[in-house]
Amino acid sequence: MSIRRSHRRRLAIAGLVLLVLGVFQAGSAFAQGDSAPDPYALAINTVWVLFAGSLVFFMQAGFGFLEAGFVRARNVGNILMENFIDTAITGISYWAIGFGLMFGAGSAFVGAEFFLLLDIPDTYAGIPTLAFFFFQFAFSAAASTIASGALAERTRFKADLVYSAIVSGLIYPIVGHWIWQSEGFLAQMGFWDFAGSTVVHSLGAYVGLMGTLFLGARRGKSFGKNAQGIPGHSMTVAALGTFILWLGWFGFNPGSTLSGMAASDISLIMVNTNLAACAGAFVALALGWWQSGVPQLPWAFNGTLAGLVAITAPCAWVTPWESIIIGAIGGAVMYVGVYLLERFKVDDPVGAVPVHGFGGVWGTLAVGIFANSSTGGPVGLLHGGGLDQLGTQAVGVIVVAAFVLSSAAIMFAVIRATIGLRVPAQAEVLGLDIFEHGLVTYPEFTNAFSVPAEPKPGSPHARPRATSAQSPVADFVGAGGDK
Amino acid sequence: MSIRRSHRRRLAIAGLVLLVLGVFQAGSAFAQGDSAPDPYALAINTVWVLFAGSLVFFMQAGFGFLEAGFVRARNVGNILMENFIDTAITGISYWAIGFGLMFGAGSAFVGAEFFLLLDIPDTYAGIPTLAFFFFQFAFSAAASTIASGALAERTRFKADLVYSAIVSGLIYPIVGHWIWQSEGFLAQMGFWDFAGSTVVHSLGAYVGLMGTLFLGARRGKSFGKNAQGIPGHSMTVAALGTFILWLGWFGFNPGSTLSGMAASDISLIMVNTNLAACAGAFVALALGWWQSGVPQLPWAFNGTLAGLVAITAPCAWVTPWESIIIGAIGGAVMYVGVYLLERFKVDDPVGAVPVHGFGGVWGTLAVGIFANSSTGGPVGLLHGGGLDQLGTQAVGVIVVAAFVLSSAAIMFAVIRATIGLRVPAQAEVLGLDIFEHGLVTYPEFTNAFSVPAEPKPGSPHARPRATSAQSPVADFVGAGGDK
Amino acid sequence: MSIRRSHRRRLAIAGLVLLVLGVFQAGSAFAQGDSAPDPYALAINTVWVLFAGSLVFFMQAGFGFLEAGFVRARNVGNILMENFIDTAITGISYWAIGFGLMFGAGSAFVGAEFFLLLDIPDTYAGIPTLAFFFFQFAFSAAASTIASGALAERTRFKADLVYSAIVSGLIYPIVGHWIWQSEGFLAQMGFWDFAGSTVVHSLGAYVGLMGTLFLGARRGKSFGKNAQGIPGHSMTVAALGTFILWLGWFGFNPGSTLSGMAASDISLIMVNTNLAACAGAFVALALGWWQSGVPQLPWAFNGTLAGLVAITAPCAWVTPWESIIIGAIGGAVMYVGVYLLERFKVDDPVGAVPVHGFGGVWGTLAVGIFANSSTGGPVGLLHGGGLDQLGTQAVGVIVVAAFVLSSAAIMFAVIRATIGLRVPAQAEVLGLDIFEHGLVTYPEFTNAFSVPAEPKPGSPHARPRATSAQSPVADFVGAGGDK
Repeated sequence: MSIRRSHRRRLAIAGLVLLVLGVFQAGSAFAQGDSAPDPYALAINTVWVLFAGSLVFFMQAGFGFLEAGFVRARNVGNILMENFIDTAITGISYWAIGFGLMFGAGSAFVGAEFFLLLDIPDTYAGIPTLAFFFFQFAFSAAASTIASGALAERTRFKADLVYSAIVSGLIYPIVGHWIWQSEGFLAQMGFWDFAGSTVVHSLGAYVGLMGTLFLGARRGKSFGKNAQGIPGHSMTVAALGTFILWLGWFGFNPGSTLSGMAASDISLIMVNTNLAACAGAFVALALGWWQSGVPQLPWAFNGTLAGLVAITAPCAWVTPWESIIIGAIGGAVMYVGVYLLERFKVDDPVGAVPVHGFGGVWGTLAVGIFANSSTGGPVGLLHGGGLDQLGTQAVGVIVVAAFVLSSAAIMFAVIRATIGLRVPAQAEVLGLDIFEHGLVTYPEFTNAFSVPAEPKPGSPHARPRATSAQSPVADFVGAGGDK
Repeated sequence: MSIRRSHRRRLAIAGLVLLVLGVFQAGSAFAQGDSAPDPYALAINTVWVLFAGSLVFFMQAGFGFLEAGFVRARNVGNILMENFIDTAITGISYWAIGFGLMFGAGSAFVGAEFFLLLDIPDTYAGIPTLAFFFFQFAFSAAASTIASGALAERTRFKADLVYSAIVSGLIYPIVGHWIWQSEGFLAQMGFWDFAGSTVVHSLGAYVGLMGTLFLGARRGKSFGKNAQGIPGHSMTVAALGTFILWLGWFGFNPGSTLSGMAASDISLIMVNTNLAACAGAFVALALGWWQSGVPQLPWAFNGTLAGLVAITAPCAWVTPWESIIIGAIGGAVMYVGVYLLERFKVDDPVGAVPVHGFGGVWGTLAVGIFANSSTGGPVGLLHGGGLDQLGTQAVGVIVVAAFVLSSAAIMFAVIRATIGLRVPAQAEVLGLDIFEHGLVTYPEFTNAFSVPAEPKPGSPHARPRATSAQSPVADFVGAGGDK
Repeated sequence: MSIRRSHRRRLAIAGLVLLVLGVFQAGSAFAQGDSAPDPYALAINTVWVLFAGSLVFFMQAGFGFLEAGFVRARNVGNILMENFIDTAITGISYWAIGFGLMFGAGSAFVGAEFFLLLDIPDTYAGIPTLAFFFFQFAFSAAASTIASGALAERTRFKADLVYSAIVSGLIYPIVGHWIWQSEGFLAQMGFWDFAGSTVVHSLGAYVGLMGTLFLGARRGKSFGKNAQGIPGHSMTVAALGTFILWLGWFGFNPGSTLSGMAASDISLIMVNTNLAACAGAFVALALGWWQSGVPQLPWAFNGTLAGLVAITAPCAWVTPWESIIIGAIGGAVMYVGVYLLERFKVDDPVGAVPVHGFGGVWGTLAVGIFANSSTGGPVGLLHGGGLDQLGTQAVGVIVVAAFVLSSAAIMFAVIRATIGLRVPAQAEVLGLDIFEHGLVTYPEFTNAFSVPAEPKPGSPHARPRATSAQSPVADFVGAGGDK
C-alpha cells in the first residue's frame, strides 16, 4: 500500500505514539523486523476498533428511537423502519461503492479502488482493512440516517430508500475522500475534522435541510409566536435514543484514533466527549427554561447531542476545559438554530438540522479556534495559530455545504419527479404506518386506528396487520401523493 | 489439561495465528519459556471474550423485546419475564451441570467434568476457564430462550421454568459436546458449525417447534389465505429487540474465535456478519413487499435475524461476497418457513422457527457449499471440497434435529402430564400477565384491564398490583388449564 | 506520582499480577527500563477500563428506565429527566470538585488536588489519569442517581438538581476518599469494598432514605396488610432498565480491577457477578411467589439487582459458589427490606432502599465472612480471618451510614427551607411531567391529559407541548408546594 493511499491524517496521533514506542523499544525483539506488523499492537488496535465500531453501529438504534419518540404514534413504525433499513442499505451501498470512493486512491476528488471490497490490502491505517471497513460502514450509516429525522412524518418510504442509498454510497464517500483520504483536496488544504462534525453530522443535516425545503412543512404544523408544536408520542422512547447515542459517541470519537495503543489520546477524547455532552445539555436546558419557564426534556436531549456533535471535530486536539466551552456553545448554537428554522418556517420535526448542522458547523470552526495539536495537526487561534486554521475550516465548511446542498437538491428534485417525495394528505392524517407499511405500531394503545384486541377468526375486513402479509391491503394504501 | 479436552476445533484459526506469531517471534523474549502463557495474548484474548460475552448476554434483552413487541399487550409481562428468568435459570443450570456436560471430558456423547465449576483448569482454549465459561453461559441462555417466542401467549410460566432448565442444562450441552468438544462424535465426523447455526439456533427452534405442536395454536389464531394475523402490541419494542440482537451478534460470531489476537479473523467475521444481516433484511422485505404490496417491518426484522442466523455457522470460512449470498438466501428461506408454518397450521407468534430453524439449517448446510478454510477447517462444494462436507453437514443437521425434537417431545409430554403446559382459555382472553403474574404490564394505556390512575387508599377490591405482594390474588389466577 | 497518591487498594490484585509478570519476564526486553510504562499493558488496561466505563455510563439509562417503568405515566418524563440530567450534573461537578476530593492527596478525610482536572499526573493507578477519571465519573453518576428512585413522583425538579450536585460533588467523593484512597481513614483501618457496595450503592440508598423521610409518602399511597400498591406504568420499560443494569455491572465490577492484564481476576469477577445476579433473582422471586401466590416481575428484577449490589463489595475475593450464596442472601435481604419499609411507612416507589441499601450493607458485611484474598486483601470469618474483618466491615458500614444520613438530613432540610423539596398536591394529581416540565410523556396513549392527535394550526389554548418552548405555560405550572 503506497503511503499516498494511507489514512495518514487520522493516524497522525497514533503514528506518533507508535513512533515513541518504537524508539523506546529499540533493541527489543519487536524492533528487529520493523516492516513486520507488531502482533500485539495489531490485536489491541483491532479489538479497540471493533468495540468502538459496535458502539457506533448501535447509534443507528439511537437515531431511530430519538426520532421515533419525537414523532406521533401514527408515524412511529415508518421512522423506525427508515432508520433500520438505512442501516441495511448502507451495509450494501458502502460495501459496493462507498468505501472505494472514500478510501481508495484516485484523485483529489474521489477514490477509485476497493469497490465490492475487491483487491483490498491486508491492513489499512494500521489495522486489518476489514476492521477499518466495519468502523467506516457504521459512520456512513450515521451520515445517511441523520436526514430521516428532518424528513419525518411526510416522506414516502421509497424516496427514503433511494436517498439513503445515494447519500451513503455517493455523497458521503465523496466528501469523506476530500477530508479523510490524504490525497483529498480539503485534506491537502489543511482542513481538519477529527471524527466528523462536518463529514458525518453537517453532511447529514444539509441533506435533511434540503429535503425539508423540497417537502414543505407537515400538515398541521404552524409557525410563529403563538404556534402550537406537535408533541412527540413518547419522551421515554426519545430518552432511550438519546442515551444510546451518548453511549455510541464513546465509540465514535475515541474510536476514530483507530488505535487502542494510543492510550493517552483515547482517554483524553473520551473525557472531552463526555464533558461537551454535559455542557451542551445544561446550556440548552437553561436557555429553554429561561424562555419558556419550564425545563423541557427535548432541550436537554438535543443540547447533549449538539455538544457531542460540536466536540466531534476538535476532540483530539483540545483540553477538557476547552471541551466544556465547545459543548456549551454547541448547545447554544443548536438553540439558536431551532429558532432560525421556526423563523424561516422550516419544519424539522426532531431538530436534526439544529443539532447536526448548526452543531457541526460550530464544531468544525472550533478546531480553528481551540485546537492545539502537538503532532502536526491543527493549531488554532487561541494557541498561536492565528486566523489561518480558522479560515481554512470556514472554507471547508462552505465547500462541503455548497456541494452537499446542491447534490441533495438535484437528488430530491429527481426523486420528486419520478417516484415521488411526499405522501398524500390523507396519508398524513391516517399516518404513514398504515399508508406506507399497512400496519399500526401500537394497535392496542392509541385511540385512533385501534384494532380489536382479539380478532375474529376468518373475519374478512381489511385490517392492517403486523405479522402476516396476505391481507388485501386497502385500496388507498400507497396511492396518491406528490407525484 | 490434556489435548483431548481442549476446545480444539474452535481454536483452529486462533491456533494457527499464534503459531505464526510464535515463529515470527523466534528469538524474542516471549519464546523462551514456551509452556508459560504469553501474558499479553492472554489479556487481549480475555478482554475480547469478556467484551463479546457481554454483547451476547445483552441478546437476552434483544430476544425479550423482539418477542414482547410481537405479542399482545396482555401477554407482554409474561414473555419478558420468561426471557429474563431464563437468563437466571441458565446461569445456575449451566454452572451446575451444563458446562460440565458440554466441555468436560467424557465420551463422544457427553462430558463428565467441571460440574459446579469444580476442578476446572486455569485456562481452557487459551483463555481463563472462567472467561470461557462466561461466554458459553451466554450462548446457552440464547439457546434456551429462543423457544419462548414460539410458545408465546399460551404457555404456563411453570412449564417455561422447567423446559428452560432442561434445555440449558441438558439438551443444549449434550449437542454442544457432540459438535464443539473435540471428542464429540459429530466433531470427529468432520461436522463444522463455527458459532452455532445448529448448536444454538436450530436447537432452540426445534424445541420451539415441538412445543408449539404440543400446545396448539393460540385462541383466535386462524390460518389460510384470508386469515387475519394477530398484530403485535408494539413495533417500537420489536425494533428495539432487533437492534439489540444485531448488536449482540457482533459478539456472538467474532467472539467465537475466543481470540483478540486473531485480528484478521475477527475483522472478517465482523464484516461477514453484518453483510449477511443486511442482505437478509432486503430479501425478506422485498418478498413480503411483492406479496402484500407494502414493505412491512416484521419482514425486515426477521429477515435480518435470519441472515444473522445463517452466517453464524460459516462466518469464519467465507468471503464478504459469499456472506451476502448466504444472508440473502437466509432471508428467503425464513420467508418460505413462515408460509410453510401457516400451511401446516403451526402457530409461532414471533417467527422463531422460520428465523432460527430454517435459517439455522440453511447456514449449517452453507458451510458445505461455501466454506474455504485454510487452517484445516471445512472446504465446501464451491472450493473443491466436493460433496463430502455438504453431506457431513446434512448428516449433522439430521442427527441434531432428530435428537432435539425427540428429547423435546418427551420433555413436553412429561410437562403436560405433570405441571401442565397450556393456560386455560380464560387466561388467554384475560392475558397471561394477569393470570400468571397478577399484574398488568401497561395499567394506564390499554383500554381493557386498565386500573384507575390513582388508587383509593385502603380500597379493598382485589386489583392486580405491580410492586406489592400482599394482595389477595383473584381466585381464577393460576387455576385451570390443560392439566 | 507519590505512592501516597496511588490508588493502592483497588490495585492490590492487579499489582500482584503485574509483579508476577515482571518476574516471569526478567531478562526480557520490557524489563530493561523498569520505570518506563509497559506500552502493551498500558494499552490493554486502558481499553479495558474505557470499555468497562462505557458500560457503567450506560447504567444511567438502566436506572432511568427501571425507575420510569415503576412510576405512573404522568411522572415518567420527570424521572427520566432526573436520571438524564443527573448524569450531566455529575459530569461537571465531579470534574470540578468531586474527583479532587476523592482521589487527590490531602488528609485521611478528604483530598485536595486535581480540582478542575488541573495538575493531574499522566497516569494514575497504572492507567492514564483521564481514563481513570472517566471510569470514576460513571461511578459517581450511579451514586447520585440511585436516590432519585426513592424520591420519585413527588420531588421538585430544582431540588433534584441541587441534591444531585451535592451528592456527586461532595458526599460521595468524601466517602470515596475514606475507602478508596489509600490515605483514607477507613482504608487505613482495613475496611474493604472492592467495587462499591457501600461507596456507591449504600450511599445512594442512604440519601434516598433520608429524602423520603423528609418528603413523606406519595399522595394516595397507603400502607399495611390490605394496602393497594401503586402500579408502575410499564413493566416493559422496567425490564429494559433491569437488563441494561445487569449488563452495566459487567463493567462495574470487573472494570474495578482497572486492569485487563489481570485476566484471571476479571474472569472470576465476571462470573461471580453473574451468578449472584441469578441467585438473587430466584430467591426474591420465590419469596414473593410464596407470599402472594404469583411470580411477580418486580421481585425478579429487584432480586437480580440486590444480588448484584451484594456481590459488588466481595466480588474479587470469593468463589463462584460463595457468590451464589451472597447473591441469594442479597435477594432475601432486599425482600425483608421491602417489608420493613412498608412496616415503617416509608414510601420508596421503586425499591431503591431495599435494593441498594439493604443489599449494599449485606454485601459489605459479606466481605468479612467470605473474603479470602491471597494478595493482602481481606480474609473473612470462614477462611480463618476470625471476626476482625467482619467487625471492621461493620464499623465502616456504621460510619458511612451515620455520615451520609446526617449530611443528607442537613442537605434536605436546607433544600426544603429554601427552594422547596416537594411539589404541591395538585401537581401530584396532574403529574410532575406537566407541573415541572410542561409536557405529557405519552400524549396519545393515556386517557387523562391526552392531547388531540392533530393540533389546530394557530390554536391559542395553553396546551403543554413537547417540542416547542414558546407556549404560555399555564399559571399553576411550577407554583406552590412545600415551600
